[in-house]
Amino acid sequence: MKLEPFYRTALYYETDKMAVVHHSNYLRWLEEARLDFLSQIGLPYDKMEKDGIMIPVLSASCQYKYAVRFNDTVRVKMKLEDFTGLKFKISYRVTDKETDEIRLIAETAHFFVDNDFKPIRIKNTAPDIYNKFKSIVGVDLYE
Amino acid sequence: MKLEPFYRTALYYETDKMAVVHHSNYLRWLEEARLDFLSQIGLPYDKMEKDGIMIPVLSASCQYKYAVRFNDTVRVKMKLEDFTGLKFKISYRVTDKETDEIRLIAETAHFFVDNDFKPIRIKNTAPDIYNKFKSIVGVDLYE
Amino acid sequence: MKLEPFYRTALYYETDKMAVVHHSNYLRWLEEARLDFLSQIGLPYDKMEKDGIMIPVLSASCQYKYAVRFNDTVRVKMKLEDFTGLKFKISYRVTDKETDEIRLIAETAHFFVDNDFKPIRIKNTAPDIYNKFKSIVGVDLYE
Amino acid sequence: MKLEPFYRTALYYETDKMAVVHHSNYLRWLEEARLDFLSQIGLPYDKMEKDGIMIPVLSASCQYKYAVRFNDTVRVKMKLEDFTGLKFKISYRVTDKETDEIRLIAETAHFFVDNDFKPIRIKNTAPDIYNKFKSIVGVDLYE
Repeated sequence: MKLEPFYRTALYYETDKMAVVHHSNYLRWLEEARLDFLSQIGLPYDKMEKDGIMIPVLSASCQYKYAVRFNDTVRVKMKLEDFTGLKFKISYRVTDKETDEIRLIAETAHFFVDNDFKPIRIKNTAPDIYNKFKSIVGVDLYE
Repeated sequence: MKLEPFYRTALYYETDKMAVVHHSNYLRWLEEARLDFLSQIGLPYDKMEKDGIMIPVLSASCQYKYAVRFNDTVRVKMKLEDFTGLKFKISYRVTDKETDEIRLIAETAHFFVDNDFKPIRIKNTAPDIYNKFKSIVGVDLYE
Repeated sequence: MKLEPFYRTALYYETDKMAVVHHSNYLRWLEEARLDFLSQIGLPYDKMEKDGIMIPVLSASCQYKYAVRFNDTVRVKMKLEDFTGLKFKISYRVTDKETDEIRLIAETAHFFVDNDFKPIRIKNTAPDIYNKFKSIVGVDLYE
Repeated sequence: MKLEPFYRTALYYETDKMAVVHHSNYLRWLEEARLDFLSQIGLPYDKMEKDGIMIPVLSASCQYKYAVRFNDTVRVKMKLEDFTGLKFKISYRVTDKETDEIRLIAETAHFFVDNDFKPIRIKNTAPDIYNKFKSIVGVDLYE
């Protein structure tokens, strides 16, 4: 399975008075990239939520390597890591689309919960998610 | 009944690369001001939602008179208007706290709905809201 | 000249606890659509800003016809109106991509300013913008 | 020197369809808390920017311990750490105002730059900032 990177262009309202994208917005871009990733591996998040499964963020860390400016386009590549059946991590590498220079290195950790925010063991609840995740953990899915 | 105006200081992340508050943020400030207004007249919105009543926005209009910059504080005064039992409007006058100069003139229209977004006649569903609204429609509640 | 409509999919973080897109976000979508419109007519906004011309929002009005939910895609069509050389308006019609049902009707008014926020007469400062705008005012540029 | 904790109430538009504050917003709250911290130690950020000094974010990490809901109020306490004259970190402990339960543990790293985003050695450029930072590094400033 080969995935398409996620591309995102910096919007005007995402800049701040320093004339660069405000650092909080990258967490939003990572969420967009993550949901695109889930769609591409056959597990669209809107369907997951309809099935009563949510994947909140347990933790997030970002290293801002270089500022992104209005109308710049970045490329996001992701990797699934540390999948236990209860939790998983996604690592992100964000580069400039034109120059390929690094912009952001990030990681988010997640767990599976039901609609009452109770943790769920995905192997029992949704074996299709479990098997798909199991098959791609640690795998570089690009090019 | 006399209300306190709502005060709001422009946050760094609310500015854009023009170095002024992005115009979309004012709708958020108006929402904050509106919920403060509801609290002050004895109808806190979190309680309203727990009682199964929501008040979505039907329309909004803003005239941006003068830009607000990082760390500027504005004062918001509101007036309830055109209350019919199904719908109502709130008009807003936003001025600089220091200079009293006008910054924004705005109006939002709302209706009452239940959790399924079905319109409700507030007189029957929540007479306390109906009576309170009836008593202050068109009234200038500031000093 | 025929333009492509602007398409936008509702992002997870743009929803609020009502499970619909927060009404403030539409002003951001309209900005995205407007800048796409400017690009398509040959006047990309990042170049305009580099040339020292900005187009702040003077006023905005939105009629929210029907809520947009996570992952819904809307189509935005725009029309340039009331262009005077100093000011102009853009009207927006936002529909669901699948069903073509109306979601939002909106209008924003703008003026041209220099980097010091001083109004400029675009005919003298940038005749290419003036002529382009003049040629499309009131024209339906889609299909 | 004793500081007041920073208090912040979750706004309606900061929630998402999970009915909790979207995780990206905490980075914005931390920025608000950080600028309040700088003001309280006598170094207001708007003055710093006027003097040509900016403090962008180099990295950020958040552990989301428990969701915050609409209208909940949190208390933020901060500590300055690892100050070198070029860089520094701030650690954050975010608790519920009512119950004192933990909500978020976070850390951000920063450096000093001039208006061209060139790193600056604060000891030479602004000895008042240097001395103040030096005097509070690692110190718990809350009662």
